Amino acid sequence: MIKEKNLRRFTENIFLSIGCPKKDAKLAADVLISADLRGVDSHGTARLIGYVRLFDHGRLNPNPEIKIIHETPSTAVIDGDKGLGLVVAPYAMKVAIKKAKRYGSGWISVQNSNHFGIAGYHSMLALPHDMIGWAMTNAAPLVVPTFAVEKMLGTNPIAVSVPAGNQPPFVADFASTAVAYGKMEILQRKGLSAPIGWVQDANGNPTDDANAVKNGGGLLPLGGDREHGSHKGYGLGAIVDIFSGVLSGANFGPWVPPFATAGFHGVAAEQVGKGTGHFLGAMRIDGFRPKEEFKASMDTWIERFRNAKHIENQPVLIPGDPERELEKERRANGIPLNDKVIEDLQGLGDRFGVKF
Amino acid sequence: MIKEKNLRRFTENIFLSIGCPKKDAKLAADVLISADLRGVDSHGTARLIGYVRLFDHGRLNPNPEIKIIHETPSTAVIDGDKGLGLVVAPYAMKVAIKKAKRYGSGWISVQNSNHFGIAGYHSMLALPHDMIGWAMTNAAPLVVPTFAVEKMLGTNPIAVSVPAGNQPPFVADFASTAVAYGKMEILQRKGLSAPIGWVQDANGNPTDDANAVKNGGGLLPLGGDREHGSHKGYGLGAIVDIFSGVLSGANFGPWVPPFATAGFHGVAAEQVGKGTGHFLGAMRIDGFRPKEEFKASMDTWIERFRNAKHIENQPVLIPGDPERELEKERRANGIPLNDKVIEDLQGLGDRFGVKF
Repeated sequence: MIKEKNLRRFTENIFLSIGCPKKDAKLAADVLISADLRGVDSHGTARLIGYVRLFDHGRLNPNPEIKIIHETPSTAVIDGDKGLGLVVAPYAMKVAIKKAKRYGSGWISVQNSNHFGIAGYHSMLALPHDMIGWAMTNAAPLVVPTFAVEKMLGTNPIAVSVPAGNQPPFVADFASTAVAYGKMEILQRKGLSAPIGWVQDANGNPTDDANAVKNGGGLLPLGGDREHGSHKGYGLGAIVDIFSGVLSGANFGPWVPPFATAGFHGVAAEQVGKGTGHFLGAMRIDGFRPKEEFKASMDTWIERFRNAKHIENQPVLIPGDPERELEKERRANGIPLNDKVIEDLQGLGDRFGVKF
Repeated sequence: MIKEKNLRRFTENIFLSIGCPKKDAKLAADVLISADLRGVDSHGTARLIGYVRLFDHGRLNPNPEIKIIHETPSTAVIDGDKGLGLVVAPYAMKVAIKKAKRYGSGWISVQNSNHFGIAGYHSMLALPHDMIGWAMTNAAPLVVPTFAVEKMLGTNPIAVSVPAGNQPPFVADFASTAVAYGKMEILQRKGLSAPIGWVQDANGNPTDDANAVKNGGGLLPLGGDREHGSHKGYGLGAIVDIFSGVLSGANFGPWVPPFATAGFHGVAAEQVGKGTGHFLGAMRIDGFRPKEEFKASMDTWIERFRNAKHIENQPVLIPGDPERELEKERRANGIPLNDKVIEDLQGLGDRFGVKF
């Protein structure tokens, strides 16, 4: 268990050590710490070493010149200049919010970026402005479309944040797959098998092998199989990919470059665009209804769903509830890190002379 | 089997008979016939009698004054004046396209409407303008959120259409549930049971009872159960509901009024907004990249996915492929109607003196 403050300072210092400007280091650390606080452990400081590897291999520009390369009043494409997605996405969100202030909504497709951490962080940036926030990103291929035996899509998450009045905001943040790959990694570490419906093997058959994705299989789209609507999960992942990759001029589909793991950190010889792509958006709620009216209705929505009749001992949750609860708890009591992550962070500390 | 032309003329005449202006009758028929051609039989002329029932019960204004009641350059709310969703949604889409032409994108939330037919029809209206189209709608509650034993959401579909170059467009159109309710009705008619993972019973347990939804159970969100990501399907359905209902001032969640069936055609005593809500959007592709560049990339996307390695005898499909194939076939050979639908249509013909 480590105090948020200490982990945050350490993370900032590592980003400073690879050459990020102070403001960017602070922001990038904030995105990772937010994931750790909200319980999305796979996207928190566990990934810090991956970003450093991207830097080591020349795939990450620690001091990028992020810029708008094309725009209309309510749309734009941003070139991330190989920067940290953790910094590029909030920049794009800022542009979306500015456009929404003036024109009602702003929609930004981003090329030439890297992994942007948790999608929810970026969508939530719209909330203080009384706006609805959207964030999506494509990612390296792990997912098999319906009927395919080839990995073609990333876990391509979608996050949508909606402000409320007296209630806390609605924050949906989910991958377009049955499960996040992080869950498979946990099973692998523990030597456990996976429930049927999460992955398929190299021949396209259902399997409980937690290593299936490594062995030629793939993660299944949300829905699992055709009979249970996997073509919908595939469609959703495809939409995210097209908005993030094709609209922006980034890579898309099987060409999206992988995050740097210990085993692999290169990119495919063939590229169809620049880096990883994101799609960010903001809509003013008073572009539709008076603010207070909307917020009162949103409170009604949340209260009604939270009080829906439910199975024994498990009330219905509002998207964002579990993460917010965990954040409160971890802010108070600290963030649990597993041994492998601690080892990685200590290694980074040793290398850059930063005390962990 | 009935010729498209004949079914179209008949449908137009029924809409004329309840007092729709000629232009509206033509448009409404076009939406229903499009569903029949594309194989979404549950949303085609099978529903014509339902629209007439809505009219009979004073819930449908055949000659509505549809109007913008609030707007910014890129957003608006439209009041459908209790009109046919089949007419209101294309009106809203036209406004979205106009805004997109001028400001890059247009996003319209609609209140006081009725069932809008197939979502894909509306999203596809953007394609001839070289725009990406969005269409979503809320609907009467049939779906249980994760952990709930109460129907709280409609099947809340999402459609996204994306233009391509040499390839036909990408048209995703899917409910946020494991299956559409139409599939349950087919099973009911045939006395068959449902696969586990489509519905739950009144106590929240998995069941294969095709009548479960009628007997206090509910349709399951895409994902099926918590372990397989039903909270993601629930989140998706919730997003559609909030964008369509809460943003517009329509009803939302369990308050969305039902389509008129033979058994039930009223609305709940308590209403939290006006009628049914939709959300329509259009984004210019050259609001992001030069048109030809985008289309070439989109062709690459489609070709790569269509040629992905696949299981035996079943290639990977691009969203929209099966519907387009079927449309070609049915335009040539006619539209199959089941006996119940033929009986309903003949009844309407007799009532209004229109030859079927």
